[in-house]
Amino acid sequence: MITISLKPDMKNPMYIQIYEYIKEEILRGNLACPQKLPSSRSLAAHLQVSRSTVDTAYGQLVAEGYIEAREKRGYFVNPITHTQNFRVTPPAAPAGSADRTAETVLYDFNPDAVDISHFPYSVWKSIGKNQLDNPKNFVSGSHYGNRELRQAISDYLHGSRGVNCSPEHIVVGAGLAHLLQMLCVLFEHKGAIAMEDPGYRSARQVLHSGGFTILDIPLREGAFDTEALKSAPTDICYVTPSHQFPLGSVLSISRRQQLLSWADEAPGRYIIEDDHDSEFRYQGLPIPALQSLDYRRRVIYIGTFSKAISPAVRMGYMVLPETLAEAYRERCSFYPCPVPRLSQAIMTDFIRQGFFEKHLNRMRKLYKGRHDRMVEAICRYLPEKYFDISGDNAGLYLILRYRGPLDEKTIEERAKKNGVRLRSLRGYYAQPPAGYSPSYLLGFAGMEDEAITEGIRCLAERVFR
Amino acid sequence: MITISLKPDMKNPMYIQIYEYIKEEILRGNLACPQKLPSSRSLAAHLQVSRSTVDTAYGQLVAEGYIEAREKRGYFVNPITHTQNFRVTPPAAPAGSADRTAETVLYDFNPDAVDISHFPYSVWKSIGKNQLDNPKNFVSGSHYGNRELRQAISDYLHGSRGVNCSPEHIVVGAGLAHLLQMLCVLFEHKGAIAMEDPGYRSARQVLHSGGFTILDIPLREGAFDTEALKSAPTDICYVTPSHQFPLGSVLSISRRQQLLSWADEAPGRYIIEDDHDSEFRYQGLPIPALQSLDYRRRVIYIGTFSKAISPAVRMGYMVLPETLAEAYRERCSFYPCPVPRLSQAIMTDFIRQGFFEKHLNRMRKLYKGRHDRMVEAICRYLPEKYFDISGDNAGLYLILRYRGPLDEKTIEERAKKNGVRLRSLRGYYAQPPAGYSPSYLLGFAGMEDEAITEGIRCLAERVFR
Repeated sequence: MITISLKPDMKNPMYIQIYEYIKEEILRGNLACPQKLPSSRSLAAHLQVSRSTVDTAYGQLVAEGYIEAREKRGYFVNPITHTQNFRVTPPAAPAGSADRTAETVLYDFNPDAVDISHFPYSVWKSIGKNQLDNPKNFVSGSHYGNRELRQAISDYLHGSRGVNCSPEHIVVGAGLAHLLQMLCVLFEHKGAIAMEDPGYRSARQVLHSGGFTILDIPLREGAFDTEALKSAPTDICYVTPSHQFPLGSVLSISRRQQLLSWADEAPGRYIIEDDHDSEFRYQGLPIPALQSLDYRRRVIYIGTFSKAISPAVRMGYMVLPETLAEAYRERCSFYPCPVPRLSQAIMTDFIRQGFFEKHLNRMRKLYKGRHDRMVEAICRYLPEKYFDISGDNAGLYLILRYRGPLDEKTIEERAKKNGVRLRSLRGYYAQPPAGYSPSYLLGFAGMEDEAITEGIRCLAERVFR
Repeated sequence: MITISLKPDMKNPMYIQIYEYIKEEILRGNLACPQKLPSSRSLAAHLQVSRSTVDTAYGQLVAEGYIEAREKRGYFVNPITHTQNFRVTPPAAPAGSADRTAETVLYDFNPDAVDISHFPYSVWKSIGKNQLDNPKNFVSGSHYGNRELRQAISDYLHGSRGVNCSPEHIVVGAGLAHLLQMLCVLFEHKGAIAMEDPGYRSARQVLHSGGFTILDIPLREGAFDTEALKSAPTDICYVTPSHQFPLGSVLSISRRQQLLSWADEAPGRYIIEDDHDSEFRYQGLPIPALQSLDYRRRVIYIGTFSKAISPAVRMGYMVLPETLAEAYRERCSFYPCPVPRLSQAIMTDFIRQGFFEKHLNRMRKLYKGRHDRMVEAICRYLPEKYFDISGDNAGLYLILRYRGPLDEKTIEERAKKNGVRLRSLRGYYAQPPAGYSPSYLLGFAGMEDEAITEGIRCLAERVFR
């Protein structure tokens, strides 16, 4: 007979104590196949508990397969492997923790930073509070994103970027990486994809890990080389025509036309247009999207709210040409939209009620001020003899090129020592060109005016001294 | 000289009218390379506008590459391809719209449905309102998910599922499909993956579209066939051990041990444990996760909030064994976590403040009532001679097997005609077994008591009559 020292315990009812005890005995090999267990009636009598308590414990052991109930014969132990050292200890935390450790940074010229202090929180919150009241946001929605949101995005894109689309062509996703991941699913036969060099590293990594072979095409005169594309063995290319990332150039209308002609020359050719930060131009009109010229339907247009609002909202969209929208329905419709319905509903209202455009206009003005401040500080503190600027008048950063005597290692060591965080342009190249001069992406969007001036001064006096 | 009929218009300033006019003329070929444009001074005089207006228009045309500024010589038209029919018409909406059309359904036995009417909205809203006040939720977070959330999930999993993990091993994602997508990235060399047959269709589709070859292993005695796995040419398998989807069986301890031994026999072997709805057992204790026995660190544990709360929250997590957690940091760390920070923060508080467990307990009780109601109705209305139930006492649906004279086509046509939505088990098989009887997944979680009884009665009187 099994003897268990049962203890009255609210948290650990009798049946659990019996179940745990027998389970342990089986795992340790003290009870082994084909041993018969006492009948529930006799064990109950022996332990002075009710028979249903033992039945419940036996039931659980049967459910997990430790023992077996044979009709009219009783309960038998199943064949189980015994392990001496069975208890599992929780694994230790890995040495390199997943979260970055802080270091002292006084001036962070982060080109990816956005200013969130001017976000209209009160509006967002009030929309959010309303939408939290809407139980609809707790029911699964369309796998392509809520139709109202797709309509709002479609209207916005048509008005502000000249994009031709209807909600049926839009897929809402969780930002660029996720949308590119979906394109990796959509393009079943992944061959090579042409990309700008220098270009967007994360996009390259995502497309590469998604099965594409990356063909890096060096920029010509600072913009995508549509001539080189013609001889490249690929049917897909990824471009940033309105504001080349990272160099900041605009793809000229003639190259846009060449690009569209290339796509039209063979079936199955597509252009992925990443329109990453085209909301922010500080001079002249916005550059219309390449998609707005795409009457052959070869352009996949991708945009996100990461720059216009914040990457923390994790929301973006792509506009698929008709044939691909159909293919998406065939091949990808079992992927749910990863954006929570609540977020989608808040964004829909935020756009529809005009707050998004209002916010963009405000931020454009704010960022222009910071941009001008940075240009001014560079002109004041960094001598023209050694420095030039490019990629200005748009986006959230500019590029500072240095042609002086210091080498990159010295510059970067000194920057680090003085609390300046710099992003080297070198890292964005697959293959830096011959005659590359040390160049840095200087983000201004996330910095206050004062910090911009002081940061540039620090660069002049302590880094490039 | 260019003559433009300029109209005073607040929405369309002069410089835009000039820019639009010249752009159209170039695109139509009326102005062509290498034509020289009038100087801005003379055009301004001619049009009676300020010179800066013309300069702005010319500047935009230069930025987009329509014209070129040559130093001291003026502005020249660039070589542009002319298109007769250049205007783009918005594409028509596709015939098969992306959104499902409604049909009259009186009784929807949806096995994926959850009840959202009992969700503690007031708590969720109040947490949500607090978190909307926290600007931290507008800044990018960890690519693995916020650490506080990973800690909360880790604590919950340890307490309720016996899972051994620390926050460093957890990756937060947007639900099962997205987490499997990330595993497709993590496993660089994708070969075959063994899956249960019948099994979870979406998982199969995602893994297949992510590059895996699917090896369907027919269930043996209703559970994963660990014997057959031994001879299968694969190093990865995907299983639902605590509640087989869709049949509802529990993988016995001996097969669990066989599975873990299999994984231990060769390096690089892994088991994906999809613990989809293990929160809901209506009899006995919860079945501990397979991962809780995994002292060799071969199990990738995946869970979501889709069943416990709602699929609309789009949030799940996976627990990676140590070696894979390191590989994830190497290969996948450039993928941002797709879950908005706000959602993560709300969920963190919801778990930490005890509301999640409270909600689970409440729903378990509610679903048990509906489960019992369905079993009762089946026993009352559907004769034992023709029907049996399996997969009961757990999850959100049970399986009704029919062994009578009607064929599937008749059953399904009658169901449709009478407004009953049925999901056939057949669809979950890659290869339905010989001697398959028509079987249906009857979801009860999303139905009121009354509807359950009436729906089963309708099945008895109008469908299986």
